[in-house]
Amino acid sequence: MEKAQSRQPVTELDTPCVTILLDLMENNIGRVQRLVSQSGKALRPHIKTHKIPAIGAMQIAAGAIGLTCQKLGEAEIFIDAGVTDDILITFNIVGPRKTGRLIDLSERIRRLAVVADNEVVLRGLSDAAKGHGRQLPVLIECDTGFGRNGVQTPEAALDLARLADRLPGVEFAGLAVYPNNAPRTLDFFTRTLSLFEAAGMPIPTLSGGGSPALKSLADYPMMTEHRVGTYVYNDVMMVESGVATWDDCAMHVRATVVSRPTEDRAVIDAGSKMLTREQYFLKDFGRLVDYPDARLANLSEEHGIIDLSASAAKPEVGEVVSIVPNHCCVVSNMVDEVYGVRDGIVETVWPVAARGLMR
Amino acid sequence: MEKAQSRQPVTELDTPCVTILLDLMENNIGRVQRLVSQSGKALRPHIKTHKIPAIGAMQIAAGAIGLTCQKLGEAEIFIDAGVTDDILITFNIVGPRKTGRLIDLSERIRRLAVVADNEVVLRGLSDAAKGHGRQLPVLIECDTGFGRNGVQTPEAALDLARLADRLPGVEFAGLAVYPNNAPRTLDFFTRTLSLFEAAGMPIPTLSGGGSPALKSLADYPMMTEHRVGTYVYNDVMMVESGVATWDDCAMHVRATVVSRPTEDRAVIDAGSKMLTREQYFLKDFGRLVDYPDARLANLSEEHGIIDLSASAAKPEVGEVVSIVPNHCCVVSNMVDEVYGVRDGIVETVWPVAARGLMR
Repeated sequence: MEKAQSRQPVTELDTPCVTILLDLMENNIGRVQRLVSQSGKALRPHIKTHKIPAIGAMQIAAGAIGLTCQKLGEAEIFIDAGVTDDILITFNIVGPRKTGRLIDLSERIRRLAVVADNEVVLRGLSDAAKGHGRQLPVLIECDTGFGRNGVQTPEAALDLARLADRLPGVEFAGLAVYPNNAPRTLDFFTRTLSLFEAAGMPIPTLSGGGSPALKSLADYPMMTEHRVGTYVYNDVMMVESGVATWDDCAMHVRATVVSRPTEDRAVIDAGSKMLTREQYFLKDFGRLVDYPDARLANLSEEHGIIDLSASAAKPEVGEVVSIVPNHCCVVSNMVDEVYGVRDGIVETVWPVAARGLMR
Repeated sequence: MEKAQSRQPVTELDTPCVTILLDLMENNIGRVQRLVSQSGKALRPHIKTHKIPAIGAMQIAAGAIGLTCQKLGEAEIFIDAGVTDDILITFNIVGPRKTGRLIDLSERIRRLAVVADNEVVLRGLSDAAKGHGRQLPVLIECDTGFGRNGVQTPEAALDLARLADRLPGVEFAGLAVYPNNAPRTLDFFTRTLSLFEAAGMPIPTLSGGGSPALKSLADYPMMTEHRVGTYVYNDVMMVESGVATWDDCAMHVRATVVSRPTEDRAVIDAGSKMLTREQYFLKDFGRLVDYPDARLANLSEEHGIIDLSASAAKPEVGEVVSIVPNHCCVVSNMVDEVYGVRDGIVETVWPVAARGLMR
C-alpha cells in the first residue's frame, strides 16, 4: 500500500485516509483543559479516541493530571512511550494473566490506578498485587444510570471500599462514574458522600467523565477530576450533543467519489470498514464538510452512498470529499496511521500505536 | 500484548479474541462450492470476509475459479501470497496512482479483471493500461436495485461495453451485479441479454453475488459465476436470512464476563471495537452461543452489555462466553490475528494479512 509522506500537500494523499487538522486539535486540547481547570477539577484525558502517544504528551503538556486507558494493551503502549507517570485504567481487569500484567505495569510508573465494581475483580487485583511492596490504588466504579458497569447503591460502594482497604496489596482510592448523568449522578454522589462521611471513610478522588458532561461541570462540585476523550477530535455526535461546533471537528476522513450512478447519488471509497456503522441517535453516517445538504445515507463495507437530492452542488467522479465521522473514537481504531495536517500540508504521519490492542 | 500460541487449548486464550472453528469453516467452503458448482456456475469467493491468504487457498483448492477482492491492497496481499492466478476487483479504481498499481498487479498473474460503471473510470483504466501489451478485462457493473454503484439501464451497459472495446488497453469482459436481487436483477439481465445479442456483442461473463442469493441460484440461469464472501464463516445476518444455521457459524468471538452489576445484567470485555455496531434489521449486537435467551443488547467501545432478564442461566464474573457476531466480515477487519480451532485446540494462528488496507 502506498504510504503518505510528511510535507506533502494534503491534496496528494491517496484516499480513503484519516486526517487530523492540527490547529483545530490543539485548540480543542487547550480549550477543554482551560474549561476543566476553571471548574476546579483535574482533567484526565482518555486516550481511546486517538491511541497516539504523541497526542497524549500534548494533553499532558497542556495541563492534564494524567491519562485514562480502557485496555491493558493501551496502557502498555503509553507507558512504553513515557508520556505520563499517572494512568487510570477504567475497566475491570479479570484473570491472573491480566492482573499480572497490570502489576508489572504499575511498577513502571509513579501511579497506575484501576477501577473495580465487584468483589471477584477486587480479590483478583489483591491476589496479584500483594507482596509487591506498594498498594495498587483502586477506584470503585458506580453505575449512576448509564446501565453499564458499576455498583448500584452507595451502600455497595462503601462495602467494596472497605473490602479494598482490608485486602492486601490494594487500597481504596476513590469513586469513578461514567458518564456524569444528572440528576442521578448528582443524587448518587450526594448520598454516597454522606454515607462515607458517616462511616469515617475519606474519598480521595471522585472521578467523573463524558464529553456531553463538559457542558455541566459546575453542576458537580464534589467531582475532583473529569475524564474525556472525544473532545480532542470531536465528531458529529459531539456537535449534535451541543459540546462542539463543526469548526471544532479536527478529524476529517478524505474519500474519493468513484461513481455517480444517478443525478442524485454519489458513491465514495469509504464505507463501514473506515467510518463504521455507528449511528446512535443520528440519521446519517457522517457529515460532508463541503456538501452540508448532501446526506451520507448508507454504508457498505467499502462504499459510502451519498444522497444528493437536497444538494444543489454535486461532486463529480474523481473529486475528493471530506467527512466528519459520527464517532471519531472508533474511526481511529480502523486505521494504522493518521495524517496531521496544517495549512494544507501533511506535517506528521502518526502510527495509531495502540490500535487494535484487544487485551 | 500477550500472543496466542498454536496447540494451546482454546480455553487458555485470553479474551477478547476471534476464533475460527475449522471443521465448520471447511464444511462451509465445501458445501457452498458444491451448491454453486451444481448450479452450473463458477464460484469466485470474496476475500473481504477473511482477508487471510491461507483461507483463499482452501477456497481455490475446493474448486473456486478465482477470488474477488474489493481493494487494490487486498489484491496485492493475495497476489504476493500466490494463492490464485485469477482475481476480480469489484470496485471502481480511480486516479493514476491506483490505476498504475492495478496495471503493475495485472502483469503478475494470469488474469486480473476489474469492474467499471462510468466513462471516467473506464478512460482512466485505459490510460493506465494502454501500451502494456495485454488487454485489461473490464466488467461493466450494473445496479439492479441495490442502489449502490452501477449503470442504471441495459442501454448504458451497452454503451460502456462498446466504449471498453473501442478504448486501447481494455476489453469488455462481461457484466457484474451485486447482489442478485430478484425480480429486478432477472429482468435487468433478460433485457440486457436481448440488447447485447441484437447488437452482436457477446457477454463473456455474467457475474452475480451475495450470500442470501445462494438460496436462489437456479433463478438466474444466465449467470456464469457467483461471488460470495460471508459463507466462509457465517454470522447472525446469514442465519436470519435463512442461508445458514447456527451450526454453520464458524466465527466465535470469545469474551470474558467482567461484571454482573445486577441480577439481569452481565458486562463482557468485547464492545464495538471488536464486534462493531452493525445491526441492519437485527435487534441485538450478536448471539451468545451458550445463552440463547440472553440478549447482547448494547455495546460501548470496550464493553458489551448483556440483558439476562429472559435467561434462566446467568454467567458469572470470570466466565468466558462465545458470541456469533452480527456481521463477520467487519469483525475480521478489527483484529490483527484470528485463531483456527479444532477439537478445542488452537491449530493455527492466522495474521489477518489484508486487514486495514484502506487503499
